[in-house]
Amino acid sequence: MKIGLAQINSTVGDFEGNTQKILAALEKLKAADLVVFPESALCGYPQQDLLDYPSFADKAESYAERIAAKAPGANFLLGSIEKNRDSGKPFRNVALWISNGKIQARYFKRLLPTYDVFDEDRFFEPGRSPLLLDFRGEKIAVTICEDIWNEAGGAKLENRYHQTPLADCKGASLILNLSASPFEFAKIRSKRGMLESISKKYRVPFVYVNCVGANDGIIFDGRSYVWNGEGEILAEGKSYEEDHLIVDVKSGTASAEMLPSSMEETREIYDALVLGIRDYCRKQGFSSVVLGLSGGIDSSVVACLAADAIGVENVVGVLLPSRFTSAESNQDAIEMAKIMQNPIHIFMIEDVFQAYLRTMSKAFEGVAADVTEENLQSRSRAGILMALSNKFNHLLLTTGNKSELAVGYCTLYGDMCGGLAPLSDVYKEQVYALGREANRRLQRIPERVFTKAPTAELRAHQTDQDTLPPYARLDAILKKILEDFQSFEQLVEAGFDPVEVKKIFHWIRTSEHKRFQMPLGLKVSSKAFGIGRRIPIVHEFFEKLDASR
Amino acid sequence: MKIGLAQINSTVGDFEGNTQKILAALEKLKAADLVVFPESALCGYPQQDLLDYPSFADKAESYAERIAAKAPGANFLLGSIEKNRDSGKPFRNVALWISNGKIQARYFKRLLPTYDVFDEDRFFEPGRSPLLLDFRGEKIAVTICEDIWNEAGGAKLENRYHQTPLADCKGASLILNLSASPFEFAKIRSKRGMLESISKKYRVPFVYVNCVGANDGIIFDGRSYVWNGEGEILAEGKSYEEDHLIVDVKSGTASAEMLPSSMEETREIYDALVLGIRDYCRKQGFSSVVLGLSGGIDSSVVACLAADAIGVENVVGVLLPSRFTSAESNQDAIEMAKIMQNPIHIFMIEDVFQAYLRTMSKAFEGVAADVTEENLQSRSRAGILMALSNKFNHLLLTTGNKSELAVGYCTLYGDMCGGLAPLSDVYKEQVYALGREANRRLQRIPERVFTKAPTAELRAHQTDQDTLPPYARLDAILKKILEDFQSFEQLVEAGFDPVEVKKIFHWIRTSEHKRFQMPLGLKVSSKAFGIGRRIPIVHEFFEKLDASR
Repeated sequence: MKIGLAQINSTVGDFEGNTQKILAALEKLKAADLVVFPESALCGYPQQDLLDYPSFADKAESYAERIAAKAPGANFLLGSIEKNRDSGKPFRNVALWISNGKIQARYFKRLLPTYDVFDEDRFFEPGRSPLLLDFRGEKIAVTICEDIWNEAGGAKLENRYHQTPLADCKGASLILNLSASPFEFAKIRSKRGMLESISKKYRVPFVYVNCVGANDGIIFDGRSYVWNGEGEILAEGKSYEEDHLIVDVKSGTASAEMLPSSMEETREIYDALVLGIRDYCRKQGFSSVVLGLSGGIDSSVVACLAADAIGVENVVGVLLPSRFTSAESNQDAIEMAKIMQNPIHIFMIEDVFQAYLRTMSKAFEGVAADVTEENLQSRSRAGILMALSNKFNHLLLTTGNKSELAVGYCTLYGDMCGGLAPLSDVYKEQVYALGREANRRLQRIPERVFTKAPTAELRAHQTDQDTLPPYARLDAILKKILEDFQSFEQLVEAGFDPVEVKKIFHWIRTSEHKRFQMPLGLKVSSKAFGIGRRIPIVHEFFEKLDASR
Repeated sequence: MKIGLAQINSTVGDFEGNTQKILAALEKLKAADLVVFPESALCGYPQQDLLDYPSFADKAESYAERIAAKAPGANFLLGSIEKNRDSGKPFRNVALWISNGKIQARYFKRLLPTYDVFDEDRFFEPGRSPLLLDFRGEKIAVTICEDIWNEAGGAKLENRYHQTPLADCKGASLILNLSASPFEFAKIRSKRGMLESISKKYRVPFVYVNCVGANDGIIFDGRSYVWNGEGEILAEGKSYEEDHLIVDVKSGTASAEMLPSSMEETREIYDALVLGIRDYCRKQGFSSVVLGLSGGIDSSVVACLAADAIGVENVVGVLLPSRFTSAESNQDAIEMAKIMQNPIHIFMIEDVFQAYLRTMSKAFEGVAADVTEENLQSRSRAGILMALSNKFNHLLLTTGNKSELAVGYCTLYGDMCGGLAPLSDVYKEQVYALGREANRRLQRIPERVFTKAPTAELRAHQTDQDTLPPYARLDAILKKILEDFQSFEQLVEAGFDPVEVKKIFHWIRTSEHKRFQMPLGLKVSSKAFGIGRRIPIVHEFFEKLDASR
């Protein structure tokens, strides 16, 4: 039996555009006996509160009928959403089995992820029974994404649900899974292991079709798989781009070249971020981006990612030096600006900064300079960058990284400004690694950017490490707090300095209000700032330093 | 039987502080046979992703034991959270029955709200069985908040759940409900009706204890109730403040004065917003606020709300005029500034604005002035306000309203700056009503502020209605889109102008990225911008105007 894998890039709510993609895929894959689309291919994933609009489900249902009618010769499984006609939550996450121009059967997703970025219990009523299709001599079990993740080797979810969908699929000769499974680096390997274990456990061919592309901050990496019944991969879809494969699951001949998964963390994250930037620009209608180049590693890496995403000619890098900017920083920033193949813009912020100080001189009379003046410089820069964004319709890219966002070492309405923050889920040490990866692809970032001490240059002789612990240690502690959910006591027991750990908890807590207003970030870890991490602004749980807020 | 109602104001994660409040309430209510606390009184509500930290549940459990031991003579029901020791989601939303210094029984919340601001399915495994306590001759049914909301007359939830908790409480002689039910104006009346219908249907006394106070943007209005078995109110807790009542549910004598609910929309919303501002300041450690006074209705109302929340002496109102600011605006702003009893600060933004234009003159050469220059003025103001906030540790209040936020008639990093947006869930027409209410309490806002045309004053002779439809019509359409989830087609069918409706959908869609970065807002409607409204930034569902993004 020949299975077509339609690894497509849908846009949320774009019923017309997604329908065209679906019909085109059916045409490309017409040699297949059966075509499998990703989860929610028709409506895009995640739909979130667009589902509050009854017209959303109406459209999903009418477009599904239309697609069925337009492809009378095709047999396919299409991911979508529908109204729930029984009691319970108002909708169903559904796989439609379409054949002979009609919807012949429906499978309702049974395990509904409701953690991190997932909110499926918010809208969907779970299915309670399997779907086994009798088709051309095969007995085909249909599942959707999470339905297979409570198997051993899955996402430690064994205990979370009260159903085990695959256990109800006894007698299946083929298992299909329609997925919308977001990229996280650590998941690539574990997912592959889990899929392999399913193929081995049930001893039947197994087809996993994942979507690709980015919707808001969630990046889908594609990388669909076909396994035979012995735990061997017959085919793998491309990573980070659309793909259309036909695989004979019985004879085991792959239609596509066997692509080895590189599994190299930095390369994968680099590719994921490039896709995230590209799709945000494309789906929002931006053809160019602007960013401030400081001569530091963060802005250099964002410039490279953007260049690789939308073309170096569409990236505008500007310099915004102050009296505290060193000659080295300016040189390194100009080196980066040169690669953009655009006129180099340099805006001195001194004039704006001085105008602010003049304007406030009376109010600030007799009060010592403090972080206020540092923030004013950062905000002067932001005013200029946003003006360029407004005037020329460039998307402003934010250059901050996860480490500084976590501890609040950044200025709200200053360097935090922008429409997209490519590095907001990337720790500082990882940013350096991404810089190396950028240079491996094309030598661009000056060597000095990797070796000089990182600095915000908001006062004389300032370096990040005047305030923060060394990044290697800071990043290690942050990961334990943010992603492993360790407590102060656990970290101290593990040997970290109590004073330092307390300070970091304090910083995280007192910068929650800043992150509440941060730009959309691209998610690459198991816990990114944004919709998947819902920590209250006002709380007394994390440790705090005395006599401060 | 004498029931004590402990209507307290808990802070999320403040186990020490909440414990003190709980012990103090038990002392105050020691004449009661049994004391009832609100839902999650021990840990605060909502806990959100603090639950990801295992130490959160550990603390909740150990503090519950400690409270039990410290109040050996009290009998009480305490709302908290616990680890789930069975399969399923990791935690339980629990009511602990504590008597003789020990936890004697546990009731697990059965209906878990997962919509709007509620995310309970994210963490909690639902209970499946009732708890009926035999205590001093009564059979007492225990329920938690949502457990009673699928009764007829509830929140149209009849069909959403597969359990009907009260139906399993046959034989109960008294029903208790521990709640953390957020304020929405429209809910006051419907809630009261629903509670009344429960009391009538089950014909037993019914005690409803709600928490009070604000956590992040959610405001709890208190207003606990005791009903006898004939649908009559025996007692009502205070609105918007803590209260401790003892009510004999059998003899029907109330310990507190019978407070009539005013049910007057504007007054209720005014009081709710005052509480929201007060609690955000108090729980975040701010003793003063700053805001820009434009002479318009929004900033005038925010000034009054803030004055009523934290005292007029703690509100700093500043004027930030430009060349486009009219004499009338300045006069009206000064009138408002005078009531603040603080020195009046006036910062002309011209110097900063001109510095920006000079700095960018080359880049903008030959390009016509547009919204960029308008935004620069707004951002110049924001730079000054944030500097005042940084320098003097004032919380910056954002003055924008729901109407302008909805259509994006506001400047990101400009007038959208601030730590708290009191009016972000209040339509423009409602803002005028709140202004009248402010003056009813104390004559403060000049009459002209109500009668002159609203304007952003970012260019000469500008008024809001150059761009927007009249607010009465805009607000009506926005409510239908944002809160009633109507489609373009439905609105056109209802007689609204298709061109105007399309434009409004377009504006909502193209300003989603701005609201993504808006400050924390206070929720007073059924659908506020923020965590309870999760519309993707990138989507193609809402209508858009051609040839623009």
